[in-house]
Amino acid sequence: MNQQYPSLLLQKAVDEFSKLPGIGKKTAMRLVLHLLRQETSEVDAFGKAIVQLKHEVKYCKVCHNISDTDLCQICANPSRDSSTICVVESIQDVMAVEATQQFHGLYHVLGGVISPMDGIGPSDLQIDSLVDRVSKGDVKEVILALSSTMEGDTTNFYIYRKLADSSVKISVIARGISIGDELEYTDEVTLGRSIVNRTIFTGNI
Amino acid sequence: MNQQYPSLLLQKAVDEFSKLPGIGKKTAMRLVLHLLRQETSEVDAFGKAIVQLKHEVKYCKVCHNISDTDLCQICANPSRDSSTICVVESIQDVMAVEATQQFHGLYHVLGGVISPMDGIGPSDLQIDSLVDRVSKGDVKEVILALSSTMEGDTTNFYIYRKLADSSVKISVIARGISIGDELEYTDEVTLGRSIVNRTIFTGNI
Repeated sequence: MNQQYPSLLLQKAVDEFSKLPGIGKKTAMRLVLHLLRQETSEVDAFGKAIVQLKHEVKYCKVCHNISDTDLCQICANPSRDSSTICVVESIQDVMAVEATQQFHGLYHVLGGVISPMDGIGPSDLQIDSLVDRVSKGDVKEVILALSSTMEGDTTNFYIYRKLADSSVKISVIARGISIGDELEYTDEVTLGRSIVNRTIFTGNI
Repeated sequence: MNQQYPSLLLQKAVDEFSKLPGIGKKTAMRLVLHLLRQETSEVDAFGKAIVQLKHEVKYCKVCHNISDTDLCQICANPSRDSSTICVVESIQDVMAVEATQQFHGLYHVLGGVISPMDGIGPSDLQIDSLVDRVSKGDVKEVILALSSTMEGDTTNFYIYRKLADSSVKISVIARGISIGDELEYTDEVTLGRSIVNRTIFTGNI
C-alpha cells in the first residue's frame, strides 16, 4: 500500500522507527500513534532515555561490557574470581551467563565473532586486549563461550592460537543436547559430540 | 529469565522501549543495542523525531485528522468534494481509504468507537463536531466507514440517530465477502448480508 502521510512530522517519526530491525512501516505507525496518545512527559522520557544512553554510556575499560562507570560492576566487585575470564560475543551474552548464576569470574566482551563474510576480522574485536589481560599473569583459565557456529569456532581457534604461548588453561563451554531435547530430533553432529564428550553420571542432572 | 542490567542507562532505555505495545524486554534490548551501534547523530535524530512530533503535531480543526497545520491537507484542498464526509475511527483509517483512491470527499476522524467496556462514550469521540459540520448545511452525504464490529455498529447507530433531524443522506460502506474470499469459509452473517445486499452485475468486479 503506497501511503501518503497526513503530516511530515508523523512521517519522520514513522521513518525513524521503521529503521529499527524487524519493524516495518505498519508496526512503526502503530508504535508512533501509541506514543502520540501518551502524556508529553512520557514521550519526552522515552526520547531522553535513548539519547542519554547513547551520549553517556561507557564501556568497561577492562572487559568492554556496557557500564555507567569506567569499570563495570562485575569487574569492580572484589568477591568475583578474577583468575577466570569468560569470553563472550556481546552484552546480551554476559546477561545470559549471569542469569544462570553458575559463573563467578569476570568476563571479556569481544563485540562479535570473526566473520569474513560480514567483513569482521580479528582487529575489529577485543582480542588484543584479551591477550593483554592474560599476559598480566593473574588469569588461570579462559572459558570460551561463543556461539556454536562456524564463525564462533573460527574465533575460538584464533583466540586459542593467540594464547598458546601463555600457560593459561583454555576451556570451551560444553556442547551437547539441550535440556528437554529429544534424541530423535537432535542433529547428528550435536549428538555425536555429546557421546564423545560424555560425563560421569553422578545421579544429578 | 530474571536479568540484571549492567547499566542503569541501558535499563532505562530498555524499560521505555518495552512500554510500547507488542515489544517485550528481549525485543526492547535488541532495539536499544541496535540504536547504540548507530552514529550519535542518528540516535539524536531518532529521539528528536518522536519528541518533536508529540510537541508540534496538530489536529485539523475541521476533520481532526493529524496535520502539520491548523487545517489538514485534505480539508484545505479545494478540489476535494466538501459535500461528502467519510466518518472513520482513526488516522490509519484515513490513510487506508486514501490509499484506495476511490474517495474524493472529506473525512471526519472520530478518534475511536463507542465502547462501554473500555469506558469510551459518545462524549469522548468527535461526534458533536460532526453534527455541527452537518448542521452548517453544505454536507449532502455522510458515509459511515467504521469497523464491522459491535462497537462500530453501535457508533453507526448513535450517529444515525444524532443526524436523523438533518436532511443529510447517511450511507454505510458495503459489507460482504472480501476479494479473494472463498464462500465455503465465509461466516454466515457476512454471507447472508452479501446476499441481501447483492448488487446488479455489470460485468465489472
